[in-house]
Amino acid sequence: MPKRVAILGSTGSIGTQALDVIARHPDRFTVAGLAAGKQIEKLREQAERFGVKVAASADEGPAGLLRVAVESKPDVLLAATDGFVAFDAVFAAVECGIDVAVANKELIVAAGDLLMAAAAKSGSRIVPVDSEHSAIFQCLVGESRDRVHSIVLTASGGPFWRKTKDEIQNAQVEAALTHPTWQMGVKNTVDSASMMNKGLEVIEASRLFGFPGERIGILVHPQSIAHGIVIFSDGNVKIQAAAPDMRLPIGYALAFPDRLSGTNGSDPLQAIGAHPQASALRFDFERPDPDRFPCVGLAYEALEQGGTMPAVLSAANEIAVHAFVEGKIGFGQIPIVIAEALSSAMVREVNLATLRQADAQARDDARAAVNAARRVKV
Amino acid sequence: MPKRVAILGSTGSIGTQALDVIARHPDRFTVAGLAAGKQIEKLREQAERFGVKVAASADEGPAGLLRVAVESKPDVLLAATDGFVAFDAVFAAVECGIDVAVANKELIVAAGDLLMAAAAKSGSRIVPVDSEHSAIFQCLVGESRDRVHSIVLTASGGPFWRKTKDEIQNAQVEAALTHPTWQMGVKNTVDSASMMNKGLEVIEASRLFGFPGERIGILVHPQSIAHGIVIFSDGNVKIQAAAPDMRLPIGYALAFPDRLSGTNGSDPLQAIGAHPQASALRFDFERPDPDRFPCVGLAYEALEQGGTMPAVLSAANEIAVHAFVEGKIGFGQIPIVIAEALSSAMVREVNLATLRQADAQARDDARAAVNAARRVKV
Repeated sequence: MPKRVAILGSTGSIGTQALDVIARHPDRFTVAGLAAGKQIEKLREQAERFGVKVAASADEGPAGLLRVAVESKPDVLLAATDGFVAFDAVFAAVECGIDVAVANKELIVAAGDLLMAAAAKSGSRIVPVDSEHSAIFQCLVGESRDRVHSIVLTASGGPFWRKTKDEIQNAQVEAALTHPTWQMGVKNTVDSASMMNKGLEVIEASRLFGFPGERIGILVHPQSIAHGIVIFSDGNVKIQAAAPDMRLPIGYALAFPDRLSGTNGSDPLQAIGAHPQASALRFDFERPDPDRFPCVGLAYEALEQGGTMPAVLSAANEIAVHAFVEGKIGFGQIPIVIAEALSSAMVREVNLATLRQADAQARDDARAAVNAARRVKV
Repeated sequence: MPKRVAILGSTGSIGTQALDVIARHPDRFTVAGLAAGKQIEKLREQAERFGVKVAASADEGPAGLLRVAVESKPDVLLAATDGFVAFDAVFAAVECGIDVAVANKELIVAAGDLLMAAAAKSGSRIVPVDSEHSAIFQCLVGESRDRVHSIVLTASGGPFWRKTKDEIQNAQVEAALTHPTWQMGVKNTVDSASMMNKGLEVIEASRLFGFPGERIGILVHPQSIAHGIVIFSDGNVKIQAAAPDMRLPIGYALAFPDRLSGTNGSDPLQAIGAHPQASALRFDFERPDPDRFPCVGLAYEALEQGGTMPAVLSAANEIAVHAFVEGKIGFGQIPIVIAEALSSAMVREVNLATLRQADAQARDDARAAVNAARRVKV
């Protein structure tokens, strides 16, 4: 029987790539439901193409999302919306024991503990879609968590990895929007330049896998082929690698615990990521540099403080990045704005109400910090 | 309860390193029995040190080995003798359902199919000790064999990896005995120089994991940190890495399905194999070169022919390597001698009798080829 997949956020980047995976494997998947935001026409096309009976757009509000996430009776729900909009629907699915392939970073950063606790209770399996977390998840398959010494997320290093501290602080918007190995949206690309993406991923990893910050490392790996590393208690290490193509971790998360087929060719060098003409493949691993990339340290701090602080970090970062892209602050002021918001915030236990308050307050504090920074600039 | 370990070949390199692992983990292991060849005094010391009641030396013949392998009632038997001497004892242990950590290459190359069939029948778990096969074994944990596209063994490339074909063919004994990354005996070092070690490991991998030769690749990885790679059907890849220290795969095989503890420090770069002072770690992967290293191709041929041919390959290689070390033939004649023995041999179904015949005949044929080569030389 093909797996029934429901998608929240079907017209976004992850959503459309998931439908691409599903279209290539009609024997493995059918689409049970689709929900999207403003792109109604694209949603309609998708629903028609995949013969979907349950579809919902943003106009319908929370009830539409819930209908797709739960009432379409999926075997697996792909949570691929941004922000907080789909929280209730995803939680409802988890409480019903539906497996969730999770691509919603805010959901994991802010409410990962709640999500994992609900999943443990219902038996729902939470499988990450992000390539780094998929890597760790894959390396942990069949292994005991008690025998894990630490986990390591790899980072491309972003466009500024070879720049000096001064060059980074004074970086222009255009420079921050050029990513060497991955194609992605504006927000993600700036996060990659500041390495805040990796900081947020450390928090996600802590939520998903239950390890504290001191057992989650980062290594810069400019080739973006190895995505995650697990170091076991006995000194053995597993590294997951894959071409930098989001359809791989998406397909893994949808098919779990099975794997899809489709890898062709018999050249091992190519299979592990080399170009067809290359005679060699090189992996470099380097230590990150906390001094040039202070956002990483802020993320570890927020993780250690716990509670609502990761949500504060994430919200303040969003405001700071937008302010940078709009030319209101310099690149070097991004971490300053975030640090302001973190120091203004109080650590609260996480529930949906405290999260929303913390999020709103952090945005206000960050906006105030942006305005203060502009005054300094002028 | 600590695991009871019996060791065949306790005074050899693998045996002594296994006892080192056991000594470091007295809460995890006790020694149930020890068997060794000629080093009686060392065996006596080991038996005394570990409070072993069942010990046997080569003088006692097959009965002594059987006593250690089976009658000492181990939870796991480490098969670490060379050659055919311990076949009967290891098979008896497997038939009794005793888990076997297997470091005896001849056993797997020549009789791996018989061994795996016997283990499947009794429920005995066969865990490889060789670092490359341990790597593949670890990457397969929790995964379905049906979803494996191919496996890849890494090779250091040996001392001749950067030499030309001419330089290799005319290599002197001293050059062949210098290995860049591993410390090992004369036979193994020459096998590393000819890359026959990798050819034999491909055959072992085929036996242990049930994949045909065309699904087992080799990549040269000069750093010797990544030991094996599994490429899955969905394009995802797992790489196992560990410091080049045989105690790691030995400890893994003895502790399986658990893992030992002991990894310290929190620097991820060091944990995956970098020197403490290094700021970066580099993995290179290159395609092997069948033209400069013809022994690899001979091994794939023997694997494809099947039956007793891998045993012929292994025996002829032993004679050829000894002839090279004794100065009777040049390095470039090693594959010629082996090819002679292979072409003289007939493919027979494997049992202990046909194996012994094939082994003896291959040695005779290889010796004849060595003498013919010497005549040519003169």
